[in-house]
Amino acid sequence: MLTYSFENIGADSLYEYLYKCIKNDILQGRIPAETKLPSKRTFAKNLNVSTITIENTYGQLIAEGYIYSVPKKGYFVSNLTNMVKHVPVSKENPIHVAVEKKSYQYDFASNQTNPVHFPFTIWTKLVREVMLDREKDLMTNSPSGGVLELREAIAGHLRGFRGMNVCAEQIIVGAGTEYLYGLLIQLLGKELIYAVEDPGYSKIAQIYRSNGVKCVHIPLDKDGIHVEELNNSRADILHISPSHHFPTGIVTPISRRYELLGWASKSDNRYIIEDDYDSEFRLMGKPIPAMQSIDVSEKIIYMNTFTKSLSSTIRISYMVLPKHLLEKFYKELYFYACTVSNFEQYTLAAFIKEGYFEKHINRMRIYYKKIRKQVMEIFKESSLALKAEILEENAGLHFLMRIKTSYTDEELIRRVAQKNIRITCLSQYYAHHEDVNSHILIMNYSGIALEHVGEVFETLSNCME
Amino acid sequence: MLTYSFENIGADSLYEYLYKCIKNDILQGRIPAETKLPSKRTFAKNLNVSTITIENTYGQLIAEGYIYSVPKKGYFVSNLTNMVKHVPVSKENPIHVAVEKKSYQYDFASNQTNPVHFPFTIWTKLVREVMLDREKDLMTNSPSGGVLELREAIAGHLRGFRGMNVCAEQIIVGAGTEYLYGLLIQLLGKELIYAVEDPGYSKIAQIYRSNGVKCVHIPLDKDGIHVEELNNSRADILHISPSHHFPTGIVTPISRRYELLGWASKSDNRYIIEDDYDSEFRLMGKPIPAMQSIDVSEKIIYMNTFTKSLSSTIRISYMVLPKHLLEKFYKELYFYACTVSNFEQYTLAAFIKEGYFEKHINRMRIYYKKIRKQVMEIFKESSLALKAEILEENAGLHFLMRIKTSYTDEELIRRVAQKNIRITCLSQYYAHHEDVNSHILIMNYSGIALEHVGEVFETLSNCME
Repeated sequence: MLTYSFENIGADSLYEYLYKCIKNDILQGRIPAETKLPSKRTFAKNLNVSTITIENTYGQLIAEGYIYSVPKKGYFVSNLTNMVKHVPVSKENPIHVAVEKKSYQYDFASNQTNPVHFPFTIWTKLVREVMLDREKDLMTNSPSGGVLELREAIAGHLRGFRGMNVCAEQIIVGAGTEYLYGLLIQLLGKELIYAVEDPGYSKIAQIYRSNGVKCVHIPLDKDGIHVEELNNSRADILHISPSHHFPTGIVTPISRRYELLGWASKSDNRYIIEDDYDSEFRLMGKPIPAMQSIDVSEKIIYMNTFTKSLSSTIRISYMVLPKHLLEKFYKELYFYACTVSNFEQYTLAAFIKEGYFEKHINRMRIYYKKIRKQVMEIFKESSLALKAEILEENAGLHFLMRIKTSYTDEELIRRVAQKNIRITCLSQYYAHHEDVNSHILIMNYSGIALEHVGEVFETLSNCME
Repeated sequence: MLTYSFENIGADSLYEYLYKCIKNDILQGRIPAETKLPSKRTFAKNLNVSTITIENTYGQLIAEGYIYSVPKKGYFVSNLTNMVKHVPVSKENPIHVAVEKKSYQYDFASNQTNPVHFPFTIWTKLVREVMLDREKDLMTNSPSGGVLELREAIAGHLRGFRGMNVCAEQIIVGAGTEYLYGLLIQLLGKELIYAVEDPGYSKIAQIYRSNGVKCVHIPLDKDGIHVEELNNSRADILHISPSHHFPTGIVTPISRRYELLGWASKSDNRYIIEDDYDSEFRLMGKPIPAMQSIDVSEKIIYMNTFTKSLSSTIRISYMVLPKHLLEKFYKELYFYACTVSNFEQYTLAAFIKEGYFEKHINRMRIYYKKIRKQVMEIFKESSLALKAEILEENAGLHFLMRIKTSYTDEELIRRVAQKNIRITCLSQYYAHHEDVNSHILIMNYSGIALEHVGEVFETLSNCME
């Protein structure tokens, strides 16, 4: 009869230890297939343990399929003929994959928000209030589009801040715009052709392609998307940032907006995705109105995010669907759970409704204006001013800088990286390289502390020689 | 010269009001294209406002493209010929789309977690600590796969609880398993054929199809996936829950597990997605070991979620990639931002590392065991016991119940719904209806308060006659 000693039992319970012993013996072939195991009572007696211990052991072995029971006959070892013959190798050596990107001391390419600006005190207070007062809501599954309270708050914000007359139901909340692009592809169709701006964020095209749809690049002229090129492209969906294009800063004027709406209205398949990701941070004048607000033919899908206006580490974005697409969404994609946790949805809803979001934006605008002014002054005083010219750009948290240097853009980026500074060039944002403007840097200054800007400018200047 | 009265200015600033007046006049055609506007100084004098006001007004109109400036000549109205002729219609009538699903008083189909079980006090404490102590980490962008601290905590949990020897880097965190399925399709390939269990969660097939990939259903026998059918299916990717199939409760025995691994190892394209969504809640004996732990050929992609074990309203799931797929992930999908907010990632990391997660699971297991026992006792006492038989099912938070009734499953569901009770039948989980077992109910009791179970059973019983 099977006999096991409990000498090396360690921290296991009796039944766990016995289960492991028998399982190993079966796996190693020491107990052959179809062997009849001792009855529970005999085995218990033999091992001097309780019958319950044997019952639990056999139960676990049966559940996992190592043995089986035949009523009134007893327990038998399963036939594991199809078993892969080797026992799992020890995975002692941990896996090392180069997963983390290089980080730089000074990064003009980062879109990371500066921790000192996040309204920690208010946010903590609201989180606490939400957790105290809203237990039931927090534990109630959110509708696919997000909790209504947040969608109402966003609709209110869009009304006041962007002149958009939308209702809460039209708003679909999701964990980042990247996720929403994927949802939109499922909604609009994978057989359609998606068009993006050239130059533009390469990530947007990457996401479309990674989702398996055809993606084309449309060149820009000074007013935004080149309409003739668009007409020639066979594109169905146009993805643009008409109120502030990255990285050129182009604001698409009203006449071009109407032309683009005209293009969209020529076919039922056509839509424009208005990616309004940093409209809150136009530093001069009023915000540029959204294209969505002049769309009477339900052709604009408006999209925005709190990752830019609040923190890049809080993943909440949203889109505003025209009515007929909203119906399609609820018919075809209703089964998706909302990807944002209720805790953050309710906290953000309170943050907007109680006026903190507007205050935060205003404070940030004033701050960025001040920083921009100071950065410009530091620039003028620096030796960089002799080798570079700042191109007019009033709209965002970065500016373009045309430089004089004999290095290629690639060489310059490499030289600067050796000094622990990361820069990006406009040329890197082009898909079609024949169109490229070289020697234009994109200076995102929001992630660099003011006291370092001077020395960083000098270092940059030295790298250009 | 243009003249405007500031009588109806309301809350607008001077420049905002003036901007709106001029913009409207241009849109309505009252100021024709190419009209030269007054110079800033003259206009300011005429309206009795400051030049700065006019400067801001013109600036905004230029930015939006309503007017343009010609150096040394002045300001001119743009030609908006392509303008769609109608002015936006008033959107006074709010959109009403039937977006919310019917909710039931008693829901045997809900997977919603009961608020009273969520560890609010601990969670609130951890949230507060994280927000106080981790400002910088909270504002630092998470790697694509999630913050390392959480991934380490999950690896530790898998080691202790599932006998899985994985390292933190292999773990990819995302906002729900539904999101991760989409990522996996991008990683493995859209041209592959994905196989799911029949019966099974219809949502899984829906998600695959919505992502544009081919999805086939493989029937089950008593041990899980029918291997011959799988071999005949031309499937590349097999999506299964071997440790606890929903809704049948089948645990795939070790011999079948090796057969399936054998199937996977026959082609480089083949993988098995092990969806281990509720392994924490096996109520009898030890948890069934994960298939991942016997996989020596890097064929298993393990997946699990905290939406089941913690709360359905916190959207955190993860997958464990084999090494070579991890490298592919970081090469091809590195550009995606992690979809879970840092705030919740760090809170969950602390929750696991400080032992609260294990305590929570143990408490819930004891609770569910107790409830299960009581539900069974209430069942035996009820008149339902005369018309129904509970099928053996030890593994999860639900049980199967075979009923005697002359109604079809559809009729019964409708009759019961009239009493404000939602039930689902096993037959609803089949894709191929010829295989269907009818008159088997899936009773998810976790969302129903114990004091109501008796009356709900009586109502159910009455509906069957």
